Amino acid sequence: MFSKKMHDLGTSPSVIRDLFEYGNKRKAEIGADKVFDFSIGNPSVEPPAKVAETIEKLLRESDGVSLHGYTSGAGDMGVRTAISEYIEKIHGAKVSPSHIYMTCGAAASLTITLGALFEEGDEFITFAPFFPEYRVFVESTGAKFTVAPSDEKDFQPDLAALEKLISPATKGIIINSPNNPSGVVVSEENIVKLCELLKNKSTEIGHPIVLIADEPYRELVYGDVRVPYLMNYYDDTIVCYSYSKSLSLPGERIGYIAVSDRMNGADDAFFAICGCGRSLGFVCAPSLFQRVVKECQGMTSDISIYAKNRQILLDALTSYGYRCIQPDGAFYLFVEALEPDAKAFSDRAKKYELLLVPSDSFGVGGYVRISYCVSTEQIQASLPAFEALAKSYK
Amino acid sequence: MFSKKMHDLGTSPSVIRDLFEYGNKRKAEIGADKVFDFSIGNPSVEPPAKVAETIEKLLRESDGVSLHGYTSGAGDMGVRTAISEYIEKIHGAKVSPSHIYMTCGAAASLTITLGALFEEGDEFITFAPFFPEYRVFVESTGAKFTVAPSDEKDFQPDLAALEKLISPATKGIIINSPNNPSGVVVSEENIVKLCELLKNKSTEIGHPIVLIADEPYRELVYGDVRVPYLMNYYDDTIVCYSYSKSLSLPGERIGYIAVSDRMNGADDAFFAICGCGRSLGFVCAPSLFQRVVKECQGMTSDISIYAKNRQILLDALTSYGYRCIQPDGAFYLFVEALEPDAKAFSDRAKKYELLLVPSDSFGVGGYVRISYCVSTEQIQASLPAFEALAKSYK
Repeated sequence: MFSKKMHDLGTSPSVIRDLFEYGNKRKAEIGADKVFDFSIGNPSVEPPAKVAETIEKLLRESDGVSLHGYTSGAGDMGVRTAISEYIEKIHGAKVSPSHIYMTCGAAASLTITLGALFEEGDEFITFAPFFPEYRVFVESTGAKFTVAPSDEKDFQPDLAALEKLISPATKGIIINSPNNPSGVVVSEENIVKLCELLKNKSTEIGHPIVLIADEPYRELVYGDVRVPYLMNYYDDTIVCYSYSKSLSLPGERIGYIAVSDRMNGADDAFFAICGCGRSLGFVCAPSLFQRVVKECQGMTSDISIYAKNRQILLDALTSYGYRCIQPDGAFYLFVEALEPDAKAFSDRAKKYELLLVPSDSFGVGGYVRISYCVSTEQIQASLPAFEALAKSYK
Repeated sequence: MFSKKMHDLGTSPSVIRDLFEYGNKRKAEIGADKVFDFSIGNPSVEPPAKVAETIEKLLRESDGVSLHGYTSGAGDMGVRTAISEYIEKIHGAKVSPSHIYMTCGAAASLTITLGALFEEGDEFITFAPFFPEYRVFVESTGAKFTVAPSDEKDFQPDLAALEKLISPATKGIIINSPNNPSGVVVSEENIVKLCELLKNKSTEIGHPIVLIADEPYRELVYGDVRVPYLMNYYDDTIVCYSYSKSLSLPGERIGYIAVSDRMNGADDAFFAICGCGRSLGFVCAPSLFQRVVKECQGMTSDISIYAKNRQILLDALTSYGYRCIQPDGAFYLFVEALEPDAKAFSDRAKKYELLLVPSDSFGVGGYVRISYCVSTEQIQASLPAFEALAKSYK
């Protein structure tokens, strides 16, 4: 009477959700301040004040019919123009407003892009560790989902392994940098090598391989790290962006797809994106928040709070003997488990009231993900538990 | 390099969009007040003041992190509880909060419901005239889209014709009442007969046929007309609702799916809905507007404006000799064309600066749709043109 596949998706166990629910139960038992929940990647920093100010201004100055009315399917042209100008100003890349499609966030950016590109027999490849929903989104189109390994020591992409996996079926590569769950930013050196490889392979297999850049964490980087803008390195690039993390608006579902002006058949790819958005039931991206992000180009929440959390945790964990993957971006620390089985390690951590996500669902074993988008107080209060957990293995 | 099907959808000509664009060009040529654009079904009445008041109150009283944060995939439980209580209070039907799934509007409600129900070989049936996107949404799942005729004189569903069309492949029937484009409200008598037929046919074919009630126009009815609540007549009912029309918020993309508690396997159907929403990339419905609609249950924009427009137009057109289908709901008048070819009639109307949508794309010939969600001034100013158009056929 209903789709078994969808039912399975709707009931499939989620390690993250299970941990989060365990945490809520545990907090009720022993008090919220005694449980150190690092399971969820939900921004913990207020949106910039400009968000509320812009909403209030729009409510004051616009008539409700046009403020809350339909925009065109691809989004309000003024909003798309502002984004186009911002991309050119900051990244020096050309994306015409007519190649920008406003979406209901990063997940929609991906499902629409994948559905627009998919032809029978296609495959999309990403690198492990990866955001688990990638598999759902790719397989929902009908495409094959293939995982390439990363280099084990630094979790930079393993390009030699990718080269072996690419075949005529390869339609696109999904790159997520800064990465969820590892926090790794792919180095410019590796981007250059990757793009060289894709150019050669595209020629070899007789059709372009599309680079899909999933970039919700672009602005969340620390120190002097730079996230290369992929269109500047490779023509057949589509950027899937979301304001969820940069502006702390994950529930508002607002983002965009940007098709490089230099992409082969950019106009046609854009039309396919419009068609796919239509077929999936995305009539337009939420109209009020389209106008909000227009006024907030280049702004972010106060990222210094994440930077502080990251540094406290990184220094402490390293001093207790944990090995952390170089965490240049996002708000995740990817830490080697102190025993081979990440799930067993996560279970033992629970005894210290530490909720850490085992890495298996991200496509690699032996690590845990620590989301440091929590209060600095929680980070500081958790340190003795991390120390005790490490000692328990000695 | 991209999906041909999606490209075709993204570039397919739309009679409504073409008319709308013609109208914009024509307005630039001769002045906006000289062109009588009745092409678009976009609410023209301000949202209730409570919408802006609620947004301002939420901005003042909530912290931004939770106000704009993720809700659960199915929506905020407080919001779903309020909707459940409202449905019970107004319609006397039982829909537990755990059977309500918040969506990004009516289109999303439909794509998610159809995708959740679809199994290989399935077919969904609706009655002509129908909202053209139904075909897109149904065929995108992989299902067959079948159209049953309506009775030609009053556009009530032709149940004898439906009976002949139902086969073991029939998974669901989509009912849209009040109807876009006809404005018709299906009578209670016909609902009772339809549900009787579906019960018998479900037994005959060995599985339940699901009734999908697409109800974005539920509150837009005139006089003492009542729109029967389908769950009260048939157990296997799923309501697809949107606040786009009732609260004049079409751009904000907020609605819900309600699965009747009495549906066969209601919990499993709901899980499939959750899975399908996830696979299509709907992470959650926009969080701010979930909270807004919670506070606006049962409110509507000032519908008296539509009622006034409808009456002026109906009286005048009837007096000029037009035949109008009984327009009990929505904001559409469905008028018999004065020649057999609706497109030719719409083209002739253009000479009088009247933009009327020919009915062919709605699945029936020989009519035009007039959207009266425009200013009353436009209605009044257009009357001489309607009169002259009628005279030109005498």
